[in-house]
Amino acid sequence: MASTISIEQYREGLQQGNIALLSRAITLIESRRPDHQRQAARLIDAILPDTGKSVRIGITGVPGVGKSTFIEAFGMQLIESGKKVAVLAIDPSSSISKGSILGDKTRMGQLSVHPHAFIRPSAASGSLGGLTYKTREATLLCEAAGFDTIIIETVGVGQSETEVSHITDFFLLLMLAGAGDELQGIKRGIMEMADGLVITKADGENKEKAKAARSEYARALHFLPPHPSGWIPEVKVCSAYDQTGIAEVQAMIERYMAHQQANGYLEQNRSEQNRFAFRRLLGEQLQQILYSKPGLKEEVQLLEQEIRNGRLSPYSAVDRIIQQL
Amino acid sequence: MASTISIEQYREGLQQGNIALLSRAITLIESRRPDHQRQAARLIDAILPDTGKSVRIGITGVPGVGKSTFIEAFGMQLIESGKKVAVLAIDPSSSISKGSILGDKTRMGQLSVHPHAFIRPSAASGSLGGLTYKTREATLLCEAAGFDTIIIETVGVGQSETEVSHITDFFLLLMLAGAGDELQGIKRGIMEMADGLVITKADGENKEKAKAARSEYARALHFLPPHPSGWIPEVKVCSAYDQTGIAEVQAMIERYMAHQQANGYLEQNRSEQNRFAFRRLLGEQLQQILYSKPGLKEEVQLLEQEIRNGRLSPYSAVDRIIQQL
Repeated sequence: MASTISIEQYREGLQQGNIALLSRAITLIESRRPDHQRQAARLIDAILPDTGKSVRIGITGVPGVGKSTFIEAFGMQLIESGKKVAVLAIDPSSSISKGSILGDKTRMGQLSVHPHAFIRPSAASGSLGGLTYKTREATLLCEAAGFDTIIIETVGVGQSETEVSHITDFFLLLMLAGAGDELQGIKRGIMEMADGLVITKADGENKEKAKAARSEYARALHFLPPHPSGWIPEVKVCSAYDQTGIAEVQAMIERYMAHQQANGYLEQNRSEQNRFAFRRLLGEQLQQILYSKPGLKEEVQLLEQEIRNGRLSPYSAVDRIIQQL
Repeated sequence: MASTISIEQYREGLQQGNIALLSRAITLIESRRPDHQRQAARLIDAILPDTGKSVRIGITGVPGVGKSTFIEAFGMQLIESGKKVAVLAIDPSSSISKGSILGDKTRMGQLSVHPHAFIRPSAASGSLGGLTYKTREATLLCEAAGFDTIIIETVGVGQSETEVSHITDFFLLLMLAGAGDELQGIKRGIMEMADGLVITKADGENKEKAKAARSEYARALHFLPPHPSGWIPEVKVCSAYDQTGIAEVQAMIERYMAHQQANGYLEQNRSEQNRFAFRRLLGEQLQQILYSKPGLKEEVQLLEQEIRNGRLSPYSAVDRIIQQL
């Protein structure tokens, strides 16, 4: 069905904010059919001039931190201040029942039915890099359709936090109050990657604990190396339940964007993200060529096992493989 | 000259701790001649069974932190406790005058002339990945020659800190007392990567400041996510000048190694490092095949520029390139 709409029709429809066409366009880019993939590539090229003017926010946090609830409250805050918000996801497990807002209909509330919001579950699983690429293209389509704020949530497993940093401007880390166990689910390196931290559930008996945690994290961040752009990551507290602190998160991100636009960092970062996407895609395509030779994929896996066990050097293995091309 | 020695002669010589042969073997693996590269690959395969029994320590820090002085003191401490120490470097600038111990003969002192020490400057510059691979192979050769502690220092520019983490067991970060300016030269993510921190120059008037910095960094680390293996990174102070704190650094690393050997993490980490080296080498070789086609390298660079500027989508560019293969 998607193939009966021309590129020009897609582009015009997106420019008019046609949500049905946006959904179909995203379905098209997710398709694995070669003819759809070619059409999708032409569509992305056609809409590139209409993209780039949004804020791209990555949101991550361990299961139980209240990500769905936060995104609901944050999304409504943005809409009430005049924004048009798209919510996408990177979910390698492709399971909509593992803590993503997009799988939890009981928490979708007002956001999912608001005319200025667009919510789309993650693409079906492929390689993690492929999934990130599809989400990147979905982001561009949402921008072409007039959404000025794109939220990309990660279901916090494996590498998805690092992935989301490749396609967003601002990386927001949701945290629970306290150290120790609450830090267990967070991958090393993620806190230093964050542009802002939000301590959630700062209500009732947890309020004082959340404020104490904010001081401690702010202090810890002070002893980490500075952001290359000069931006100093901030730590906020919020309660989706009490509806407090959400506006401050929005204000922080707006200050960040103003700062990074003024010093050229935003442009430089996006340029580098584009380059990374290209290099990775190229590497994957080259590997596909390698695997198209019968039996070579299995041989690579066998050699990799020998290398992992220290019984074969990488250089010899690679030489063996390349000889066969 | 190197090619007139057989693989078996190399192996036996290394097993006997022949330093002259070790030097020649490292020169062989660094050579770019195809016949040398083939011989080097066979040599590495032959000595693999003789490797793996050392401690591999990566040491990094900003220029001015006192890295050369520390490595001199630390190396002598290790030797005095019965170890045999090799010191290698990853230096992408290939300039031996930019703060590496290996370029600073005035600071080499006792270590460079001790029979139980072996010091080798970085290989000539190539790709950063290639440089890391050569250092990896040099590490294996040193192990085959009986060195039980391998120190790999990085000249702290660009990506070399991340590189050294791919080929070492313990990542040691040298720091100056204080925050703010002193943190300027450290890349984001490096502190969270460290298995241990050492505040240097804890002597004279700087002593109290160094101790205060240790408390603050230990506190900051407490609020970062834990190491997946359960190891809690420690913060030490030392003074190469007063000869204090050096033995404590050695003790910390020994405790780390015992901990990681007991829980299987060391083996798992090395296995993953081997796999990474393989995958990266394979990717580079595939890219070399791509670039062997005349004009394709330049075209890739032109397309990359268009992509960086947001004027072309990565997918289309990659498609264009792959069609030509």
